[in-house]
Amino acid sequence: MTIITCLAPVNIAVIKYWGKRDERLILPLNDSVSATLSINQMHAKTTIFTSTDLSEDRIWLNGKEESFDESSRLLTCINEKKERECLNSGIETEDRSKWKVHVCSENNFPTGAGLASSAAGYACFVYCLTKVLNVDCEVSSVARLGSGSACRSVLGGFVRWHRGLKGDGSDSFAEQIVPAEHWPTLRIVILVVSDHKKKVSSTSGMQRSVETSELLKFRVSTVVPRRTEEIIKAIERKDFHSFAELTMKDSNQLHSVCLDTYPPAVYMNDVSHAIVDFVHKYNKLKGSSNKLAYTFDAGPNACLFTEGEHLSEVIALIKRVFPPLSDDNFVRGLPVQNKQIDALCKQFDNLLLPSCGPHEPGLLKYILSTKLGDGPTVVSEPGIHLLADKGLPKKQLEV
Amino acid sequence: MTIITCLAPVNIAVIKYWGKRDERLILPLNDSVSATLSINQMHAKTTIFTSTDLSEDRIWLNGKEESFDESSRLLTCINEKKERECLNSGIETEDRSKWKVHVCSENNFPTGAGLASSAAGYACFVYCLTKVLNVDCEVSSVARLGSGSACRSVLGGFVRWHRGLKGDGSDSFAEQIVPAEHWPTLRIVILVVSDHKKKVSSTSGMQRSVETSELLKFRVSTVVPRRTEEIIKAIERKDFHSFAELTMKDSNQLHSVCLDTYPPAVYMNDVSHAIVDFVHKYNKLKGSSNKLAYTFDAGPNACLFTEGEHLSEVIALIKRVFPPLSDDNFVRGLPVQNKQIDALCKQFDNLLLPSCGPHEPGLLKYILSTKLGDGPTVVSEPGIHLLADKGLPKKQLEV
Repeated sequence: MTIITCLAPVNIAVIKYWGKRDERLILPLNDSVSATLSINQMHAKTTIFTSTDLSEDRIWLNGKEESFDESSRLLTCINEKKERECLNSGIETEDRSKWKVHVCSENNFPTGAGLASSAAGYACFVYCLTKVLNVDCEVSSVARLGSGSACRSVLGGFVRWHRGLKGDGSDSFAEQIVPAEHWPTLRIVILVVSDHKKKVSSTSGMQRSVETSELLKFRVSTVVPRRTEEIIKAIERKDFHSFAELTMKDSNQLHSVCLDTYPPAVYMNDVSHAIVDFVHKYNKLKGSSNKLAYTFDAGPNACLFTEGEHLSEVIALIKRVFPPLSDDNFVRGLPVQNKQIDALCKQFDNLLLPSCGPHEPGLLKYILSTKLGDGPTVVSEPGIHLLADKGLPKKQLEV
Repeated sequence: MTIITCLAPVNIAVIKYWGKRDERLILPLNDSVSATLSINQMHAKTTIFTSTDLSEDRIWLNGKEESFDESSRLLTCINEKKERECLNSGIETEDRSKWKVHVCSENNFPTGAGLASSAAGYACFVYCLTKVLNVDCEVSSVARLGSGSACRSVLGGFVRWHRGLKGDGSDSFAEQIVPAEHWPTLRIVILVVSDHKKKVSSTSGMQRSVETSELLKFRVSTVVPRRTEEIIKAIERKDFHSFAELTMKDSNQLHSVCLDTYPPAVYMNDVSHAIVDFVHKYNKLKGSSNKLAYTFDAGPNACLFTEGEHLSEVIALIKRVFPPLSDDNFVRGLPVQNKQIDALCKQFDNLLLPSCGPHEPGLLKYILSTKLGDGPTVVSEPGIHLLADKGLPKKQLEV
């Protein structure tokens, strides 16, 4: 019997993945680049319990038992890698049929809020499996099989997912561009937008874009390759201005391609666009170089990037432009200094506020402040496991 | 002394004009195709008074005197054509310096509501000028100099604006594809969306797209030429299904390019996208071929196309999905039969309404029902002129 618990981070793409060239192997049409967010604010947590006493593979996701079907492919994959490793080292392989796994996983942030919960979840599951089976393999390409963008959550800092060229997907994996320590002053702020609209899932939207958007083809062949190289240079040089411009342009282009899809896939709403407007106006106010950037995934929530020195000012202004219903727990995550911004606010009120807000209160649910972080990790504090001694969820047993 | 009054129609593009290759001559990057709407529901009306007694050129637009500067270029242009005509016919030209014009123009629909008021206005002004000067010239390329899309309002039915290839713009003019009588059953419904947002003007949005959107280049070079030929065939064959698909795709692509602009130009809002959603769901409900199409210009208002047989059903469903604050004067324009749609509504309620509405009341200001119509025309009923005997506006004098 083995029990191991791991945490894995969320990642936010700055050069977006949109469109697969192989649906089964989840091979993307283009390279993508992402920032891995600190595990301290947001993470998926997975416990895997393995024993020869278990009768079947089972999985509990966010407190609810789900079918193991989708996960068995990843388990098989890691298992095969283990067997190959054993074969190469001349060690006898344990018979897979003799033992089963119980998996329990949860996110410490709302699922389906457009915050890439499946990416963190699959990355955590696969990483944890490699620890349970004690196999030393390339984790990202297995995580990719669960959910494409999951492959980028197995590394920290800034990460590039290579599309690869081979039909079997063996060269489609994630690679670290720089570790989190490279850009310690970078701050990431997530604006969770109040939204009740049923959304087009990213999987189906993506598929429809591949089938119907002519602009996607051009984006993939012409725009992304150059942008990928440019943003990597900007990240390496910590050139915030260029990083911000490329990030915003690529977010806009993703949503542009979604609109060019037939029928169109619409993820941003009026509040999202009001955030875009705010960011451009803030940058204009601050001078000639960008101090703030936005990016949007397949949902209305914004992810902002800024340097630490502007953070408290940015958050104070967001609260002015998008006033909360209540200050209670509105700003979460890394502590934000309550900076005096009267002078700036005055300037802001006069120059920009009339055209940019304040909006009616309550358009944002909350704000989460975080920064770059590392890849998945094993945790071993007492009481950390999500599964109890017999391999059943603690929370369910508590009921 | 001469006084002439003309009416000119509004046109709605189905293959969109977005981006100029020459800002001064207003030469477009691509061909566009439009439907001319009936003058009976919407028009610009212009009276021109010319006399040797007037001391200066003056213009009143929608009840307010404006500078004549923008109009003088068009006047000069028509005047030159007159001189050339006279020269060719051996007639002596009248000295332009001896007489001046007073122009009074108004729209019978709200200006700046994103309903192409400037297009109808410039078309009316130029057409009326040719009547006043009694010159027989190609009107569209002069109207183009006022506002690009105005060139399409000088003809009825479906119209193609050729981008042209020459640097002097002499081959950039409008041509009729089919007259209005070709498709008498086609109905056009304008949904005026309640909106208070300050909008990006189409001129500046367009310019920014040319400067920053890479997708626009691809659209212009690759997508539009093929779509233009396809939609002309669909119009000639009255193939509503193909016409609808091409119209919706091209509207989506225009707004897609606007989003790919940096900073993005956003014209559609959440209500616009809810209309898009409704149209796709209605088409799905009606079977495999499209029965309804949407198109959006540089604003949130929708323009819908449908065949007459579906009109009353479509309007009844729109009123269900987007309930008015009051039924009073909500549906305007061509009379719409109050069809019993209980059976369909039931089907609609069960299958689609939960995911598509009803929305909160008041999202739409009003609905205007109209159809294809002819080009500009001279009107001569008694009391029709906007200018009185001395060339001053009747309305202002009445004050």
